[in-house]
Amino acid sequence: MPDHEIPKDHPRYLSLTIREAIIKGMHQKVVAEAGLIAHGRGEAFDYLLGERSPPFAMRQQEFAVLTMLQAENPIISVNGNLAAMCPEETVVLGKLLNAPLEINLFYRSQEREQAIKKTLIDAGADIILGLDPDYQDTIEELSHLRRIVDSRGISTSDCVFVPLEDGDRAQALKRLGKSVVTVDLNPLSRTSLTATVSITNNIIRSVPEMIKITKDMTLLSKTELKKRLEQYNNEKLLQEALLFMSERLKALATSDLMLK
Amino acid sequence: MPDHEIPKDHPRYLSLTIREAIIKGMHQKVVAEAGLIAHGRGEAFDYLLGERSPPFAMRQQEFAVLTMLQAENPIISVNGNLAAMCPEETVVLGKLLNAPLEINLFYRSQEREQAIKKTLIDAGADIILGLDPDYQDTIEELSHLRRIVDSRGISTSDCVFVPLEDGDRAQALKRLGKSVVTVDLNPLSRTSLTATVSITNNIIRSVPEMIKITKDMTLLSKTELKKRLEQYNNEKLLQEALLFMSERLKALATSDLMLK
Repeated sequence: MPDHEIPKDHPRYLSLTIREAIIKGMHQKVVAEAGLIAHGRGEAFDYLLGERSPPFAMRQQEFAVLTMLQAENPIISVNGNLAAMCPEETVVLGKLLNAPLEINLFYRSQEREQAIKKTLIDAGADIILGLDPDYQDTIEELSHLRRIVDSRGISTSDCVFVPLEDGDRAQALKRLGKSVVTVDLNPLSRTSLTATVSITNNIIRSVPEMIKITKDMTLLSKTELKKRLEQYNNEKLLQEALLFMSERLKALATSDLMLK
Repeated sequence: MPDHEIPKDHPRYLSLTIREAIIKGMHQKVVAEAGLIAHGRGEAFDYLLGERSPPFAMRQQEFAVLTMLQAENPIISVNGNLAAMCPEETVVLGKLLNAPLEINLFYRSQEREQAIKKTLIDAGADIILGLDPDYQDTIEELSHLRRIVDSRGISTSDCVFVPLEDGDRAQALKRLGKSVVTVDLNPLSRTSLTATVSITNNIIRSVPEMIKITKDMTLLSKTELKKRLEQYNNEKLLQEALLFMSERLKALATSDLMLK
């Protein structure tokens, strides 16, 4: 029995098990060390959601899918945490949306790129962009290695799905005139505040739910997509997310939980 | 320039730098991998505090110091995150409170124990409990390696300061009739809900603030300590913490931040 095995009687066994998966991702060089800390931040905000997808998140996800279906050249930017947490679902979503996958890392190294590539291929991916030096473009506004993008992918795309990402990159992509769709449990992060569409939800629930929504909407005409898109407002939905979390904390403050 | 160097122009440079310190702690085997995730959860809740010590946290810290000054044999239980984040301050606080330091780990290994011991000694600690096999006691309610405590320390102490800790351990110590004082940024964690005194604050601010409070209170008589202690109610203070976070989220929802 290894020292660090999680006791099965531990009340947070499930949560600890997901954590172990992220740690395993780090050992396999898929997840960056700072990705573990980011995962922890997500855990805290997810707790404020009640670890379920609230109604506003479902609407954010519809908004996201409509935006990507409306785009000419959507693309999915994959980082380590996404690859570690839902590689199969990401591959499926990409195929449904006709959006290629591009590996694009904050903490870039060839070792991590190759580990993530392997994870995606094992999960059923065909073509993976972002690794071929013959197709390197740069985003001038970003620092050194973070600026590299694929000339067949993010560089020429009009809509980037870039979940679990850093605010810098979201801002840079937005300034280049692209639609930016993100998933970030913190509704106040720069990423959430910058993106065209921000999903305030756990990626583990979000991508499978987006797959369902895509299947429902994939046959809509461009006119119908455009019409539906007018019903959504990203700032309003983020406000709803904040107020949801605020109300939940208030309710918990007066709940039985607080009585020993 | 290493791949992962943080760009100085990054708006969260300071926060990222503290993260790097925690990652360094992991490389030195002081911090467990799950400790990185725990740090991330803390970051999220600290954001809800505005990354400052609110009035209720100052009162929680007074309550904590009074409780430890009132105790016959207080002790400080040290884990990896505490050792990585504020070793010097922990040593100073222990000396002021006449509370020995005991290394007591969730993810126990000799390598980590020795790395933490070295960190504490470098920080000025004299005696460190918890590592001598001749003085091993066990807490029967805890699983395998986590149950080991020092017969000169936690085992016979009436008051344990056990910051950044797991709910199981807090519960087990409480059931043994000890006062449990903790620091945990999540006011709803089992640790916070179980402890005799719960401090909802960032340990980086909390320990230095407790040092100041201890210096102010160290000469109070036992009678005066007891009288002052009656003014505090842990549940009420945790409720204040939750309502503070709730109000802050609500205020942020309608702030300029939300307007692009």
